[in-house]
Amino acid sequence: MAQKLVIALGGNALQTKNSAPTAEAQLEVVKSTCEHIAEISNLGYEIAIVHGNGPQVGRMVLAFEAAKDVVPPMPFDVCGAMSQGYIGYHIQQALKYAINKRGNNYPVVTIATQVIVEKDDPAFKNPTKPIGPFYTEEEAKKIADEKGYTMKEDAGRGWRRVVPSPLPRKIVEIDSVRKLWDTTVVVTCGGGGIPVIENADGTLEGVAAVIDKDYAAELLAEQVDADILMILTEVEKVAINFGKPNQEDLSHLSLADATKYVNEGHFAAGSMLPKVQAAMKFVRANPDKKAVITSLDKAISALAGQTGTVITFA
Amino acid sequence: MAQKLVIALGGNALQTKNSAPTAEAQLEVVKSTCEHIAEISNLGYEIAIVHGNGPQVGRMVLAFEAAKDVVPPMPFDVCGAMSQGYIGYHIQQALKYAINKRGNNYPVVTIATQVIVEKDDPAFKNPTKPIGPFYTEEEAKKIADEKGYTMKEDAGRGWRRVVPSPLPRKIVEIDSVRKLWDTTVVVTCGGGGIPVIENADGTLEGVAAVIDKDYAAELLAEQVDADILMILTEVEKVAINFGKPNQEDLSHLSLADATKYVNEGHFAAGSMLPKVQAAMKFVRANPDKKAVITSLDKAISALAGQTGTVITFA
Repeated sequence: MAQKLVIALGGNALQTKNSAPTAEAQLEVVKSTCEHIAEISNLGYEIAIVHGNGPQVGRMVLAFEAAKDVVPPMPFDVCGAMSQGYIGYHIQQALKYAINKRGNNYPVVTIATQVIVEKDDPAFKNPTKPIGPFYTEEEAKKIADEKGYTMKEDAGRGWRRVVPSPLPRKIVEIDSVRKLWDTTVVVTCGGGGIPVIENADGTLEGVAAVIDKDYAAELLAEQVDADILMILTEVEKVAINFGKPNQEDLSHLSLADATKYVNEGHFAAGSMLPKVQAAMKFVRANPDKKAVITSLDKAISALAGQTGTVITFA
Repeated sequence: MAQKLVIALGGNALQTKNSAPTAEAQLEVVKSTCEHIAEISNLGYEIAIVHGNGPQVGRMVLAFEAAKDVVPPMPFDVCGAMSQGYIGYHIQQALKYAINKRGNNYPVVTIATQVIVEKDDPAFKNPTKPIGPFYTEEEAKKIADEKGYTMKEDAGRGWRRVVPSPLPRKIVEIDSVRKLWDTTVVVTCGGGGIPVIENADGTLEGVAAVIDKDYAAELLAEQVDADILMILTEVEKVAINFGKPNQEDLSHLSLADATKYVNEGHFAAGSMLPKVQAAMKFVRANPDKKAVITSLDKAISALAGQTGTVITFA
């Protein structure tokens, strides 16, 4: 039986520190990323891919802001949808080629994916994700008054709009992902999914929010009954005392260890913390399964148990 | 047996003359459009939807052009991919609700869709589709020199970039559309599809081109073995001598009639002509099937044979 694998791709899978912030340069990075994914697929894993979209949506927000006298700005949820089309297109183009090159021939498709969040998620009361351009304090206050945006000072660099990061609750298009699963590599929940709330009358409504893509990948892994949740990032292994002289890279984390290290503050919010927490949630829900956190170029070794950090229930 | 129906949505299904050119206003138009489509679906038709994207991509091109000192412009193929995410998201959100409201519960999904065009399509030698902002002659010549774009004077309004409109040859993601078909309303080939060429090494490569969405819908209808190709536009029926005192609305067009009227120049290029030609191509390939051209609000009556223009082989 083929193992079912959900892969969450970090930002470095789409854009490297040295690549230009253009779609053309990103396509080259995506081609290289897709060689790794095709190699995994060639081992017989059934794969779904969740990607981030921070820099891409960031550029859209900047562009529409700069062009606001020419073209009405796009709502933030629509920017998310656009990023799914954009990044998904690049992945399906590059991955299909890399799959064909290995003598295989199955489809790769991107599904525009809405993810329901709860209206009363506490995140809505405390927006934390900065998006778009920097403003002076005066400009920021004017924008807050005019548009009702929450504006916060960002690490001495100026004021920015912040949006909430609520938890993903339901993947609207999950049935189609399941239907395609066994024959097709599906790109879904891009950027964590287009965030929508469910109104009392049953309508869905896009909201300005950012769903963490690792949490979305975890929800997807649960809902497709995946065997492995693999979160790819910049480092080969999760570490405690990260960046300190006593840094210790971890090959294995039990749920109990992980809980302890999280409580001790070893993992940075918005960085390693959501990855570890997503992995913990997956093995808590599936005590017989595993999550893996590693880097893209170590993914195959990690699946073979030779590196990476494996997170299991016990 | 349920009849298989491919619907090509014209620009007025996404944006009306009176609606603001914003994503928010478009969503309201899409909701109204989706009530009609859900009603068709409720009659038992299995549906795929192809939509246009001209105004939406136009606004993206304008925005990225206006913001070019802040953010690198997006390539034109990526704008097409973004428009598929954007418009598809709105359709799947609105249509799912309209379907549920009628007591049905099947998925609606958007697939990012690449459509292969031929490198040596004559359209590449004669670009005709104007996109983006207007320039003075001097600016236009500078852009043509710098970027290699083809620039043309547009009806006395200034100079614009023009891109080719090649014929669609192959829908890359067709297997996934087929796989989802019988359980799911699929939004695919949005904007005519993301135009790609196939290189000698098997790689696909996005090109700056616009594929006519009616031709793409026709190709889709052939490839999913649809029973009916329905092209929705602003008028209830195709007419000859359109806009003249002797205008005659047509309830039926045989392939022979249609050929004659096309040759007589009754149908405007870029408007009714590609719709009639797409319909002709479909019935030529499928002599026992039919194409229907009508308006969105007459679609149900037209499917019942009460109005619209039905195009058949004989």
